[in-house]
Amino acid sequence: MASTNQEEVRLLGKWASPFSNRIDLALKLKGVPYKYSEENLPIKSEDLLKYNPVYKKVPVLVHNGNPIAESLIILEYIDETWTNNSLLSQDPYERGLARFWAKTLDDKILPALWNACRGDEKGSNKAVEEASEALKLLEDEIKDKRFFGGETIGLVDIAASFIGYWVDILQEIAGLELLTIEKFPKVFKWSQEFINHPVIKQGLPPRDELFAFFNASAPK
Amino acid sequence: MASTNQEEVRLLGKWASPFSNRIDLALKLKGVPYKYSEENLPIKSEDLLKYNPVYKKVPVLVHNGNPIAESLIILEYIDETWTNNSLLSQDPYERGLARFWAKTLDDKILPALWNACRGDEKGSNKAVEEASEALKLLEDEIKDKRFFGGETIGLVDIAASFIGYWVDILQEIAGLELLTIEKFPKVFKWSQEFINHPVIKQGLPPRDELFAFFNASAPK
Repeated sequence: MASTNQEEVRLLGKWASPFSNRIDLALKLKGVPYKYSEENLPIKSEDLLKYNPVYKKVPVLVHNGNPIAESLIILEYIDETWTNNSLLSQDPYERGLARFWAKTLDDKILPALWNACRGDEKGSNKAVEEASEALKLLEDEIKDKRFFGGETIGLVDIAASFIGYWVDILQEIAGLELLTIEKFPKVFKWSQEFINHPVIKQGLPPRDELFAFFNASAPK
Repeated sequence: MASTNQEEVRLLGKWASPFSNRIDLALKLKGVPYKYSEENLPIKSEDLLKYNPVYKKVPVLVHNGNPIAESLIILEYIDETWTNNSLLSQDPYERGLARFWAKTLDDKILPALWNACRGDEKGSNKAVEEASEALKLLEDEIKDKRFFGGETIGLVDIAASFIGYWVDILQEIAGLELLTIEKFPKVFKWSQEFINHPVIKQGLPPRDELFAFFNASAPK
């Protein structure tokens, strides 16, 4: 861990947000101490408006006064700033593939799962089918690797924490069975490896609190 | 230029696409020889379906048989594979900011300009206002730098080529004045620097051909 006494690392986040939690997980994997500020959205703090004027969204990392936004970009910043426990391979092609899957999670896979559990057409045949197609992409990609990053947790694993942890909660609330050991055995096995990793386990929000939070705001 | 005799670099692209053209520009800036395959969309070639099964879209770079998709990810791959004429700074914070602006171009700025010129509400007050707000973000960001990357062309400049070159054509076809020297003097000045850069100038599709292509498909 490369931190010095001069370092000031601050995270503006929201405890139930998987995007915000990605940054907690990465900082914990790197062993970087940080100060956490909970944002009480939808009321946005002055700091949030100042540090992320373009999107006004969490997460924002502020390192020695320098703000950086967008979770995947923050993850790469963390990996390049604290170089222990690398989240990305040194090989350009492996790095490119990891970035491709992280982006595909955000652009395609997470929205499909969210929509099936919480969208306007939640639980509809179409939404469930799209969620299954999205999970199939991951099932084909993980193959027999322990983590998407290989033997250790990497960028794609952290980006996929929504699939590994949040989906089980959201599908229970919605009364759906999207990700099960029968349907997607490899992704399911990965999710168990992921949530039982000692650092990850300690960095995820408590399941019962997430359940209560999302249950209270579930669409009727 | 780090190419060897063994290297095989192939780009699957579409000549009028600013996303595809980004890869041409980067390879030309690096001095990397490559074979270009024009895709006759909407009929997708077998190679496109094989190399980009998730999105089935151009651009795809195939380097020694290894495919990589999504233009911003390809640009980073190119920068890490051929390390001359760097597109990104070595400083993690500068790299993070460049990635933030490249992503913001794709997620927010390009869609706003496209929508104002070509969308369902093209030319409406709302669409024009959103395009102006998007350009204002760039006007504030470029300040008095020659390029977004500083003194040389970088990732953000290449990602912004749509703003630097395509927008002038699309706004002429739509009868709009979104990006002008009066409204956004810094972005306009940047666009002139950009399109007159010797390598960029030679790597952009001919203006008259782009004009004819987009004019033929302009929404009524």
